[in-house]
Amino acid sequence: MRHLLSTGDLSHDEATLILDTAAELAQVGDRSVKKLPTLRGRTVVNLFYEDSTRTRTSFELAAKRLSADVVNFSAKGSSVSKGESLKDTALTLQAMGADGVVIRHSASGAAHRLANWVDGSVLNAGDGTHEHPTQALLDAFTMRSRLGRLEGLRVAVVGDILHSRVARSNVLLLTTLGAHVTLVAPPTLLPVSVHTWPCEVSYDLDAVLPKSDVVMMLRVQAERMHESFFPSTREYSRNYGLDGERLSRMPEDAIVMHPGPMVRGMEISAEVADSPRCTVTEQVANGVSLRMAVLYLLLSGS
Amino acid sequence: MRHLLSTGDLSHDEATLILDTAAELAQVGDRSVKKLPTLRGRTVVNLFYEDSTRTRTSFELAAKRLSADVVNFSAKGSSVSKGESLKDTALTLQAMGADGVVIRHSASGAAHRLANWVDGSVLNAGDGTHEHPTQALLDAFTMRSRLGRLEGLRVAVVGDILHSRVARSNVLLLTTLGAHVTLVAPPTLLPVSVHTWPCEVSYDLDAVLPKSDVVMMLRVQAERMHESFFPSTREYSRNYGLDGERLSRMPEDAIVMHPGPMVRGMEISAEVADSPRCTVTEQVANGVSLRMAVLYLLLSGS
Amino acid sequence: MRHLLSTGDLSHDEATLILDTAAELAQVGDRSVKKLPTLRGRTVVNLFYEDSTRTRTSFELAAKRLSADVVNFSAKGSSVSKGESLKDTALTLQAMGADGVVIRHSASGAAHRLANWVDGSVLNAGDGTHEHPTQALLDAFTMRSRLGRLEGLRVAVVGDILHSRVARSNVLLLTTLGAHVTLVAPPTLLPVSVHTWPCEVSYDLDAVLPKSDVVMMLRVQAERMHESFFPSTREYSRNYGLDGERLSRMPEDAIVMHPGPMVRGMEISAEVADSPRCTVTEQVANGVSLRMAVLYLLLSGS
Repeated sequence: MRHLLSTGDLSHDEATLILDTAAELAQVGDRSVKKLPTLRGRTVVNLFYEDSTRTRTSFELAAKRLSADVVNFSAKGSSVSKGESLKDTALTLQAMGADGVVIRHSASGAAHRLANWVDGSVLNAGDGTHEHPTQALLDAFTMRSRLGRLEGLRVAVVGDILHSRVARSNVLLLTTLGAHVTLVAPPTLLPVSVHTWPCEVSYDLDAVLPKSDVVMMLRVQAERMHESFFPSTREYSRNYGLDGERLSRMPEDAIVMHPGPMVRGMEISAEVADSPRCTVTEQVANGVSLRMAVLYLLLSGS
Repeated sequence: MRHLLSTGDLSHDEATLILDTAAELAQVGDRSVKKLPTLRGRTVVNLFYEDSTRTRTSFELAAKRLSADVVNFSAKGSSVSKGESLKDTALTLQAMGADGVVIRHSASGAAHRLANWVDGSVLNAGDGTHEHPTQALLDAFTMRSRLGRLEGLRVAVVGDILHSRVARSNVLLLTTLGAHVTLVAPPTLLPVSVHTWPCEVSYDLDAVLPKSDVVMMLRVQAERMHESFFPSTREYSRNYGLDGERLSRMPEDAIVMHPGPMVRGMEISAEVADSPRCTVTEQVANGVSLRMAVLYLLLSGS
Repeated sequence: MRHLLSTGDLSHDEATLILDTAAELAQVGDRSVKKLPTLRGRTVVNLFYEDSTRTRTSFELAAKRLSADVVNFSAKGSSVSKGESLKDTALTLQAMGADGVVIRHSASGAAHRLANWVDGSVLNAGDGTHEHPTQALLDAFTMRSRLGRLEGLRVAVVGDILHSRVARSNVLLLTTLGAHVTLVAPPTLLPVSVHTWPCEVSYDLDAVLPKSDVVMMLRVQAERMHESFFPSTREYSRNYGLDGERLSRMPEDAIVMHPGPMVRGMEISAEVADSPRCTVTEQVANGVSLRMAVLYLLLSGS
């Protein structure tokens, strides 16, 4: 592995190696050896064309715990606004000695393009509506930690699939790791190409929940709900929101996941969000370990 | 001590321990041992809902000199703008492994609420018009360094008490440490509850100055002066501004303090600001030592 | 040397010492000893009143590779917007223990003023249209690396000289180091004082190119091209843009430089930008080594 661009690029063994490495690093952290010298002298650049404090902070903490130097290169107010192309920005970062570039960009495919131009490793931290591989990996890590396996697991991904890079990355990764994914959304929030994805599709959350080991709720992007062809907020909540009543109809040990940030009362009720079956803060904690694992595997050899 | 939320929570002994620790750390720094390994592997998050480069930088330098990792988590453009609650942001930071959270927030009480949700330490870096405890501690540290004691000291705090978190934190702390505080302001810039504070109140700066060992000038928030019920800028300066003439009527070894940033010519003349009796830059220098002390006392044990 | 304010302050020996030190540090970096303990415990503050992600990042990486602590102090949203003067900001940074202040400011002369107020070292990272000394030093370093010498070298600097701090710093430095500089620009993009500069001036790029060992293209600030007394974009490109045809008329081993960010198709064609004779990414790489050298020479002794 040189880059992490798409979970679709990962073999079963590569994905498992990442998850196993993250598990080891999490254990080291629990024994309060919080800082490892592994990446001392290496430089990680966070190249964020879109704001995302959560993801940026998670990568920053992961890199610092491995003793790497971290530079935050926000595209706002930078040479980008003076007309510099992504390619020239990439060559600049490489020339400055970046060993790894973590990129968040609004254009699908930006991370792939970047990987053609730089010698270092590119880590896709979200490109348009395309992929967000470390999110899918930390989700898989969380499922495996909670439920002991991924093989044969039944996972429902619920909500705005159309605009979600998280959904696509999860479908590809979970399928590779032997889980079965069902996407649940109103027709207007599904991409037209969804029938080519290796998963099932349903419009009926109540039918899917009793047969799911994991339900992953996606954030409702409320600003899109005002567009006429989308359902109203209240109608959305009634059909696709997860409340305590719905949770009670799931298998006893089923878990509720959310990539955060949550909009309580919209896609998830406060009762469910605060339930011990909801793994949202575990996912955040696992995110740091998982990103440490990816940085370690990509950068420590070079 | 687990958190530092209000100077009102500090006993005489606790406050003195903080000041003594800061004095030791300042001495270590003077011997050019600028970096201590004490908090290596600990993570401090600066969670700033309001801009405050000075306070943020002071905490950042203090944490780095103790070898902690520091992450700046600005609420602007973050998940906060996507509808995330303070509680969910707090749980996220905790999940990421923050050992200490330094919070600046426009709402009075925000730091207290945060402290209910996280396991780590919360350091209040200013919450609304409520408190700013490290500012009061560094002020007390500066008075003690300059004048040799706090017991019995007569301190005048002058200016916009109504909107000042600095004033309240100082009144509570200085009283605990045995000093006597007089607030000096026009009636419209005093809070209605001021009669419940453990201090005296005066509208007459010229009467108070000759009896003060310390005069602490607060920043005039000029934007508020446009509101009709406030005095005009010029009238304010005449009645409550500190110039050389007024300074000369204070006791010979009395000092002038200011939390910064100063508006020269408004609440303080350039002559006074540049006088050796004005401690404003000492306060800034002491601020780093004082914040090192607080971070050390709160985080090194955990 | 205590500050680096202008390349005009540097003697031949001082400038050569900086370039030699940068060469040594670049070699150390190539042997993958990426982190040196030289400035451990020292604090470098990036005080940027104008956005410049490239320059800020370069200084930040340079300081971190020498193990200094780096604090980014953006003037936006800081005490500056509350009315604080540059002087008070400077005194604040000094009080916080800044050993070096890297300043970028829109006012020519800001770095010099700062140097009067602080005990630490001031590094001018661009002040108005005045100077940008580390850019000129990294340019000289790049020329020497590529062409083996500076003495007697013929350098053409082409484009918007009027608004360029890079041009002035290069003219002063290159002259000290024995090179000959010709400025090439339309009359409207030359400063009125240009006849006092130690260099030649030409309006005719095609006449200058065959006699140049180095051509340094400056970024066209397209927004200025709309002003009526400036040439149109297309006319500018035709007269002062560098394309493959023009490049072919230069001496065989002549090189093309650009301080970045480039506007491809405007002052430089994509063909030239991607040519092995174009040193733009080398300049970026050399910039980190050069800034390490300057930080080392200014800060390690104190």
